[in-house]
Amino acid sequence: MGDPGDALAAAAARLVSGLRERGLRLATAESCTGGLVAHALTEVAGASTVFEGGWVVYSNALKTREMGVPTVVLERAGAVSEAVALALARGARAESGADIAVSTTGIAGPGGGIPEKPVGLLWCAVADERGVTARQQVLTPRPRAAMKRAFAHAALQQVLAHLGE
Amino acid sequence: MGDPGDALAAAAARLVSGLRERGLRLATAESCTGGLVAHALTEVAGASTVFEGGWVVYSNALKTREMGVPTVVLERAGAVSEAVALALARGARAESGADIAVSTTGIAGPGGGIPEKPVGLLWCAVADERGVTARQQVLTPRPRAAMKRAFAHAALQQVLAHLGE
Repeated sequence: MGDPGDALAAAAARLVSGLRERGLRLATAESCTGGLVAHALTEVAGASTVFEGGWVVYSNALKTREMGVPTVVLERAGAVSEAVALALARGARAESGADIAVSTTGIAGPGGGIPEKPVGLLWCAVADERGVTARQQVLTPRPRAAMKRAFAHAALQQVLAHLGE
Repeated sequence: MGDPGDALAAAAARLVSGLRERGLRLATAESCTGGLVAHALTEVAGASTVFEGGWVVYSNALKTREMGVPTVVLERAGAVSEAVALALARGARAESGADIAVSTTGIAGPGGGIPEKPVGLLWCAVADERGVTARQQVLTPRPRAAMKRAFAHAALQQVLAHLGE
């Protein structure tokens, strides 16, 4: 797939034009991607016509305070879980007023992996007016920066697939 | 200063270690940098020990709803202004509970510049327990992606200077 930076930029450009064609606005709630999804989108000229904005909910406290993820969910399921991905996407859509919201929570490594939640695990959810759906992926482990790029790319691809692109 | 990407990464690494030495946590409220400041910080391994999280308040609606920037301030002073930079840094610190917050609002171009607010204009503010201070800079115009990197670098430098680094 060539340089992952290029793939990320290409996916962001496709998503901005896909959203623009449909007259939709997007918001983001990022944990493991740490702002990279928002950064990739705002690299595209004219992104402001479709990108409302987003949250980088790096700490669990912010996940709860800003996105309404219940503390009990973080404790029981863990920050990297389907329940948290769903809650983040739902929260970002509700808070922003955007048409669609996407969330990321995953284990970028190099540390932090356990057998049930290995490095490379990503939960990503997309919320729209019909509801919210989450998807789990386990990407091949790679250095932290490359992992973050792969996670951000997967998130953009999930929104593109959601739009039928 | 070599590759601006390297300068940005180096400033982020210095800031993460400077915050860690002081036991301080940081939050971000980004407009013109679109998530790049958060992304640069979270590229540093161990960033979670000092980075609480942040907001990408790309639309004016989010600046008001999430960071409490009064609509009248946005209308009178404009989104790229000292008043908005101050309000964003103050809002991010209050909302996140972090010790320090940094904000960015500027004109990345290529369009959107006017004589009083040219492309390259950046307002950046830093809030801590003593208050909030803003600084205006006008950077040499360059392509959009390079401008965003220069804005993000300037924001990290401003926090480093605030810490006396």
